[in-house]
Amino acid sequence: MKLYDVELSGNCYKVRLFAALTGMALERVPVNMQAGEHKQPSFMDMNAFGQVPVLEDEACRIRDSQAILVYLANRHGDPAWWPQDAAGQAEIVAWLAVAAHEVRAGPGAARLIEKFGKPLDKPAALGQAGALLETLERHFAQHDWAALGRPTIADCALFPYVALAHEGGIDLGPYAKVRAWLDRVRDLPGFIAMPGIA
Amino acid sequence: MKLYDVELSGNCYKVRLFAALTGMALERVPVNMQAGEHKQPSFMDMNAFGQVPVLEDEACRIRDSQAILVYLANRHGDPAWWPQDAAGQAEIVAWLAVAAHEVRAGPGAARLIEKFGKPLDKPAALGQAGALLETLERHFAQHDWAALGRPTIADCALFPYVALAHEGGIDLGPYAKVRAWLDRVRDLPGFIAMPGIA
Repeated sequence: MKLYDVELSGNCYKVRLFAALTGMALERVPVNMQAGEHKQPSFMDMNAFGQVPVLEDEACRIRDSQAILVYLANRHGDPAWWPQDAAGQAEIVAWLAVAAHEVRAGPGAARLIEKFGKPLDKPAALGQAGALLETLERHFAQHDWAALGRPTIADCALFPYVALAHEGGIDLGPYAKVRAWLDRVRDLPGFIAMPGIA
Repeated sequence: MKLYDVELSGNCYKVRLFAALTGMALERVPVNMQAGEHKQPSFMDMNAFGQVPVLEDEACRIRDSQAILVYLANRHGDPAWWPQDAAGQAEIVAWLAVAAHEVRAGPGAARLIEKFGKPLDKPAALGQAGALLETLERHFAQHDWAALGRPTIADCALFPYVALAHEGGIDLGPYAKVRAWLDRVRDLPGFIAMPGIA
């Protein structure tokens, strides 16, 4: 399987992380975002939204990091990471939606501003990040993992931009339960890092 | 099954719509957002994010409209709406992520500003809405439905805030393919409307 990949993208990293945790091999194909490769027709044919990552598995092309996690978990076949029952899938999808929106609009946006100079609204991003982190702190005060009482693709989806929050100028110091969860993810067998995440 | 529901919420409507299309009965429990009921402890116990909708099915409580669609589709059991294979689920989850972020940050946010006076960034919302609608227009120029060549929960997730775009001051006039898709959804057997959607 080929992963169209950007080293510094937390969305690409979440796919690399899940593949590493489950021992799946990915061939990484670097996409040069600075040269605008992700907006070229050849890439837009794979993903009309012009975003990394994209996964290619024979004739199948999957866009969106959350969707790729579901695909890989189904391919891997261990229901521990992505179960088959209605309540289990729903609990995970609720967190995938948080990864798609609240994480992206909060710590994700703050990092885009601070690290890559994107002209986004910094106070809005910090406000969203604060609200998210308060909610996560309450969650991880009662739960070791995002969903189902065990590591799932929900943890992989949430981890990157929370662990990279410092690159957006966000201090995780007040969020001890969130930091303890980050450490639990780091301790999973097969864990890999990315630049900015030790 | 109980749906904690707000009549004017497109996120609640997407659940009511899917239930209607599949003939599932929901008991609607109105949540008084103007009185702040969704931020009261009794509601926050059901959804730490303080958002509607929430679905209650015996001991099971599901938050997030995308997650509820997956739950109900699994409960309904017809794989036409939510298949069991890796590629099919991934194709749908990619659109659920678009519903969670791009639709919410674009036409969803524009409507919150125009209709409910929320202090969000109007130019940013209109910019996001324009980029989304351009992408959807290209998609629906080649496809009748969001995913898998047939109606799925992806269409239910995308439909409400695109169909309500006019309430955010967004003109769908230039997007003929998007409008034709909206009409196809309206023509589905069992379709129901909501205020603002004829």
